[in-house]
Amino acid sequence: MNEIYDQVKALCQGAKFAAPALAGATGEVRNNVLAAFAALLRQNAEKILTANEADMAAARESGLSAAMMDRLLLTPARLEDIACAMEALVMQEDPIGLGTVRTRPNGMEIKRVRVPLGVVGVIFESRPNVSADIAGLCIKSGNAAVLRGGKEAIRSNTAIVETARAALTGQGLPADCVSLIPFTDRAGAQALMDMRGLVDVLIPRGGKGLIQNVVENAKVPVIETGAGNCHLYIHRDADMDMAVSIAVNAKTSRPSVCNAIETILVHQDIAPAVLPRLQQALESRGVELRCCPRTLAIIKGAAAGESDWTTEYDDLIVAVKIVDFLEEAVAHINRYSTGHSETIVTRDTAAASYFTGAIDSACVYVNVSTRFTDGGCFGLGAEVGIATQKLHARGPLGLAALTTEKYIISGNGQIRT
Amino acid sequence: MNEIYDQVKALCQGAKFAAPALAGATGEVRNNVLAAFAALLRQNAEKILTANEADMAAARESGLSAAMMDRLLLTPARLEDIACAMEALVMQEDPIGLGTVRTRPNGMEIKRVRVPLGVVGVIFESRPNVSADIAGLCIKSGNAAVLRGGKEAIRSNTAIVETARAALTGQGLPADCVSLIPFTDRAGAQALMDMRGLVDVLIPRGGKGLIQNVVENAKVPVIETGAGNCHLYIHRDADMDMAVSIAVNAKTSRPSVCNAIETILVHQDIAPAVLPRLQQALESRGVELRCCPRTLAIIKGAAAGESDWTTEYDDLIVAVKIVDFLEEAVAHINRYSTGHSETIVTRDTAAASYFTGAIDSACVYVNVSTRFTDGGCFGLGAEVGIATQKLHARGPLGLAALTTEKYIISGNGQIRT
Repeated sequence: MNEIYDQVKALCQGAKFAAPALAGATGEVRNNVLAAFAALLRQNAEKILTANEADMAAARESGLSAAMMDRLLLTPARLEDIACAMEALVMQEDPIGLGTVRTRPNGMEIKRVRVPLGVVGVIFESRPNVSADIAGLCIKSGNAAVLRGGKEAIRSNTAIVETARAALTGQGLPADCVSLIPFTDRAGAQALMDMRGLVDVLIPRGGKGLIQNVVENAKVPVIETGAGNCHLYIHRDADMDMAVSIAVNAKTSRPSVCNAIETILVHQDIAPAVLPRLQQALESRGVELRCCPRTLAIIKGAAAGESDWTTEYDDLIVAVKIVDFLEEAVAHINRYSTGHSETIVTRDTAAASYFTGAIDSACVYVNVSTRFTDGGCFGLGAEVGIATQKLHARGPLGLAALTTEKYIISGNGQIRT
Repeated sequence: MNEIYDQVKALCQGAKFAAPALAGATGEVRNNVLAAFAALLRQNAEKILTANEADMAAARESGLSAAMMDRLLLTPARLEDIACAMEALVMQEDPIGLGTVRTRPNGMEIKRVRVPLGVVGVIFESRPNVSADIAGLCIKSGNAAVLRGGKEAIRSNTAIVETARAALTGQGLPADCVSLIPFTDRAGAQALMDMRGLVDVLIPRGGKGLIQNVVENAKVPVIETGAGNCHLYIHRDADMDMAVSIAVNAKTSRPSVCNAIETILVHQDIAPAVLPRLQQALESRGVELRCCPRTLAIIKGAAAGESDWTTEYDDLIVAVKIVDFLEEAVAHINRYSTGHSETIVTRDTAAASYFTGAIDSACVYVNVSTRFTDGGCFGLGAEVGIATQKLHARGPLGLAALTTEKYIISGNGQIRT
């Protein structure tokens, strides 16, 4: 434990020591690193894919589920996607640089500039593409990155991070601007969470358990991402075809992701008409319904308990509840939601406006599936995650979330009288 | 203790319940509340000044220091200043409202809007003007405020908060948009720090002890403000008159504030010439110098220990250290600073540029006194404090720091394929 802590500390000190070189590099140099990273990912493809094969073989032996194996798998096509993502970052606007300049009555000039945060720590799970994504986002935004991935992907992550480090040194920057913690057990993650003063922000990327652990145990400031207890509310006047289509899409198109819905609220007036159609559409796709007592008076299903309103199933299960009016739907959502994404289906612009104003979540939809909460779908470019907190950043976290600001004040001897 | 906790919780629930009415109010209504608040502060002047006299009498009996008594004192002129500050807020730009609107290829429209944080908690010390300032900033930014002031000012704060509440109800808004916790002991503050889920952000305003206590013990997200171990670095080529003038201003014009300097670093080449002048100017104003061994070879003074580099004296004491070169000054500052404000005196634009780029603090000055780190001096309007952290907000915290954002996405049945 102490040895792991000391080694993680040494690695973070290396990152902090290397960070100013990347922070001080021009946007052109940072883009050159990204282009070199893309080129080297292609050049090192065989080495990276071989490392991934070893991860896959170990995972197969340890009996990892098929879904997890698929998340772990790198193919030539997936690796090419990763390289293209690095090239796409080159095209994104530089988040670093001069903001406003003002001259004050006493002659001093105040510049407000966007600067990197410094050292960004990320704790993530099995997908090896995350190590390249985060390395790329940090290079673009001038931050040193310290990565701690899951044990299943350790060989793949090592090969990818080595490639990023080669891209850095090839452009005259320290390799330690990107590093990987080699300890994949709990002690490795906890050591990173303890690095207050060396790591400026920690971002957990993964499932609920991971995020909760980081939020509760980190001494470093954390950006909370990803927990998604999302809701669909079907208002009294909803287009029923649209409501069913959105329910099916938001629940079944990818049930394991954070922007899938977990509870459907239905206005009492439309419940008798829409619930049988919802049930038919969802059950035919393998979805289990957990219903409030009033819902069970209309359709058959399992009975929902209090815990169903708080659960992020991440699975083919959905809770269903009838509400008396719009305000009750809003109150339910504001009480139980994790603040990620909610949608209303309605033809009534006043109801939509009330809903979008009163719901206290990062993304509030009207007549659209919650599945669009994603940096790419929003046209914001690559993302670090979906922030469900209110401070610093909210919703899809783009490059700007990896920056802070600084005031630079110049003069000729001004003193305050 | 439990009773205090329960009462603070009830008060925060009242704030959370009231908050949406203020968040949903137009900028015009919020400005009307501020104008009414200013008018009522003048109308209730006698009542407020009488309450303050009672606070002053109790403080006198308990033997409060003259400096603290002065911070506590309200006069007709000071009260008029507070009323004018509320009117100045009316003139500031509304921080709430529509940001960008984009239409995506699938036809859905994405609005990015600035919204209030919700409920803002503030823990502060003896100055009664803080209760009006915070109430005003929160009203302007659409946030409900829960205030917990020091025990010395409880009568003054109560009278001011009652005035704010009357201004709210006069404009048809719930009084609970501004409330004051009546418990001025530690349990009252701790209860507020525990209100995760009810209070969206907590801002400590006061001395080091208060801030450290809040940062370490709050379960609610905190914006860290105010700790100021600030530095002056005198480069080899500095204009010595300017260096001495800035040192005197930054140390002695108001030694108790966070933007006063605590350590002076001097380049070895200029040390023999500038140190005697610095000593004369500072000692003649009652400043005690705590010097590194090399400094003591040039001037007389007390010897500095390691703790002097970390101490925020907030008093007429300054640490002095000779450095070999610019990079050593930067390394010293980045190691010991609290990240508030630092200044360099130099004629060399390359040295200035290196300094402003490499120093990792909120405000970095060139040839200007650090005493200007202040929302008013920066032309940013009223401030909540000076943030020394990197996430969410950094430097003088204006109205924008009391907001977050929300995405509102509208369409006609879009689903993700």
